[in-house]
Amino acid sequence: MAKKLRKRLVIIGAGFGGLNVALRLARADYDIVVVDRTNHHLFQPLLYQVATAALAPEDIASPVRKILREHENTLVLMSEVLRVDVEAREIHLHNHAPLAYDLLVVATGARHSYFGKNEWEKFAPGLKTLDDALTIRENILVSFEHAELCDSHSQAQTFMNFVVIGGGPTGVELAGVIAEIANHAMLKNFKRIDSRNARVYIVEGADRLLPTMPPELGKRAQSDLERLGVEAITGKMVTEINAEGVLVGERLIRSTNIIWAAGNQASPVLRTLGAQMDRQGRVVVEPNLSIANHPEIFVIGDAAHCKTKDGAPLPGVAPVAIQQGRYVAKIIGENLVGKQTRPFKYRDNGTMATIGRSRAVAQVFGMKYDGFLAWCTWSMIHLMYLTLYKNRARVLIEWMYGYITGQRGARLIRRASEEESTKSRRAS
Amino acid sequence: MAKKLRKRLVIIGAGFGGLNVALRLARADYDIVVVDRTNHHLFQPLLYQVATAALAPEDIASPVRKILREHENTLVLMSEVLRVDVEAREIHLHNHAPLAYDLLVVATGARHSYFGKNEWEKFAPGLKTLDDALTIRENILVSFEHAELCDSHSQAQTFMNFVVIGGGPTGVELAGVIAEIANHAMLKNFKRIDSRNARVYIVEGADRLLPTMPPELGKRAQSDLERLGVEAITGKMVTEINAEGVLVGERLIRSTNIIWAAGNQASPVLRTLGAQMDRQGRVVVEPNLSIANHPEIFVIGDAAHCKTKDGAPLPGVAPVAIQQGRYVAKIIGENLVGKQTRPFKYRDNGTMATIGRSRAVAQVFGMKYDGFLAWCTWSMIHLMYLTLYKNRARVLIEWMYGYITGQRGARLIRRASEEESTKSRRAS
Repeated sequence: MAKKLRKRLVIIGAGFGGLNVALRLARADYDIVVVDRTNHHLFQPLLYQVATAALAPEDIASPVRKILREHENTLVLMSEVLRVDVEAREIHLHNHAPLAYDLLVVATGARHSYFGKNEWEKFAPGLKTLDDALTIRENILVSFEHAELCDSHSQAQTFMNFVVIGGGPTGVELAGVIAEIANHAMLKNFKRIDSRNARVYIVEGADRLLPTMPPELGKRAQSDLERLGVEAITGKMVTEINAEGVLVGERLIRSTNIIWAAGNQASPVLRTLGAQMDRQGRVVVEPNLSIANHPEIFVIGDAAHCKTKDGAPLPGVAPVAIQQGRYVAKIIGENLVGKQTRPFKYRDNGTMATIGRSRAVAQVFGMKYDGFLAWCTWSMIHLMYLTLYKNRARVLIEWMYGYITGQRGARLIRRASEEESTKSRRAS
Repeated sequence: MAKKLRKRLVIIGAGFGGLNVALRLARADYDIVVVDRTNHHLFQPLLYQVATAALAPEDIASPVRKILREHENTLVLMSEVLRVDVEAREIHLHNHAPLAYDLLVVATGARHSYFGKNEWEKFAPGLKTLDDALTIRENILVSFEHAELCDSHSQAQTFMNFVVIGGGPTGVELAGVIAEIANHAMLKNFKRIDSRNARVYIVEGADRLLPTMPPELGKRAQSDLERLGVEAITGKMVTEINAEGVLVGERLIRSTNIIWAAGNQASPVLRTLGAQMDRQGRVVVEPNLSIANHPEIFVIGDAAHCKTKDGAPLPGVAPVAIQQGRYVAKIIGENLVGKQTRPFKYRDNGTMATIGRSRAVAQVFGMKYDGFLAWCTWSMIHLMYLTLYKNRARVLIEWMYGYITGQRGARLIRRASEEESTKSRRAS
């Protein structure tokens, strides 16, 4: 059976950007290969809910090959891309022969960056993958377990100090939820400690929380957090993180539970494209999201530095990646690669962040919301976006359950006690 | 506020045995301390469903301190017990000072045993904990991913050979479900391999499957499994397990995916009790489940060798542990420790095993069932037992979804591709 030899489109990364390219090209006349390091697409905006034991990993992740199962033209490979050879037009994989492409979409996302202080990572894990989320979840839960085991009050308190570094949406959401866990979910679960003695700190280098949102929403977020018992430290930089805790300026906050939500660094694979890059390791893209001199290569999502009119790059959020994925799919699907096209333009429908169990701040379609109404809007929008997952109903059930009872449904610690000895030693 | 100094009851292990002691003594006049290595009670009979991606860990596990939250007299500690000092009447913990007891219940369960061949473990993980289940789940899913990446047919087949060692209920259930995954859940998910080419083998040293159940049920299980494409090898011993595969007698089955469901070994902590032990490391208990010369120490569940009239010990199954836990709680609650009491007697309500998606064999209240009716019975009984978990509704939804669609809801691989290089190398 002789098949027509079709051009091959390789998509690296099955996040919001890459997946949306593939989804829109279900019937396109290409051999499409989607390569991802993991086997799942992740609904990253809700990752902090896995990290804080409200949702299970299965609620916000779905196997890529299951999502693309009906796409006859699409092959899914679980592999790590080592580098791109732009001259030979092939990608090098760690457990497979090089794979040639005619067109390439690079949607490799970002990891957290420690601004050169990589030694901080072991004390302050970041939140990008399911594995990250489960690590943070276990650290939080294990901390309370350790505190319950302490015979000294001050040692117990060290286990109950939580520091979130970074005052963007992720940091604000994490700080709020940890405070809720201490004040509600854990209540009455312990006999020797009072979980309400937990102290949550959020540290932001800019002079207010949510620096990318309008000032009044940042202020509102701060007062909402303070009502939950969170101490916000703004306008101060973290100078050191070690086994003892966090040094903010001259002040030492003793803690064994530090979460990094501050900086991003794009994937190292991007360096092999030979294109211009910014300080965060993102590739500076052309108005049509391709790279200079290589109209056959597109870079989208958190991997791309896409200039706006005022010169600032677009933010690394899901809606940008989704719209860019659809834009590139249109160019490819309509055979406009290398041709003059209308530049990519981001439609900003708003940003939002939840605070604790039932509050949020939001800027949607130009209007600003806060409080319970904003939280409802936030919940609706996130449920709508969860269409790819059969678990929408489950997430709704979990949220309703959590809202009504203040409990959290996913409080499992996978690690057994003996594996925890390292952490225990750090604090003693 | 001077409190009356109460006697302290320490319970080691929060499985079916230990938890049932604690549950029945909610209002007893004791200081109760429950110590477990993990933070959760696990519904172990459904663990193979987590291992085979039908259920999420959260569906079958619940935090111990949440279950016992309303018990004013009960403290829960997450810690590893190193040894028991029966003379000083205290237990030694790895991250806490020794803990004195007046009464002790040891319900430490069992791990799998490799009959002295511990080097087999890395090639053939067993299934006892949530961590085990997630490891096996990831191995199964990653195997198909590796097969899809293979350019050679024979190499791909190695990744698609699955060997289950042990033909008891767990082995039979695992083999059936893996065959279902290959024949249904994975169908159309891959483009280069046909998941139906997967071969599943089950190896049992006795001359038939399910040797502890009546012969006709073992035969029925074997024919049901064979209809699903499983090859049953009975009456043969495994002589070697290594990176290439399994040697059964003289026959080599090439496989990178081997699961151990054969032997059990009780916890090493039991050795420190100084009591008589059997070959599997279980403590031989008195008729009232205490140990000789120490009426204050009880051993129950998989940790106990409890003789029956015909001389054989009771099997290591949940109903035995539950009934023993309740029996010991009664002795303690009614202040009968050290006194003459009616010996423990096990009420055997039956045994069962599921085969694939909608079949089972069961012996319940003396009657033998097989086929769909047995499967319904199995489902009902397991749902009834899940009372401790709020997730009963979720499990039901997952089962219905799985039954109707043949899909599996929990197909996540936590590990990213690069971490897989070891396994990949083994097979190349």
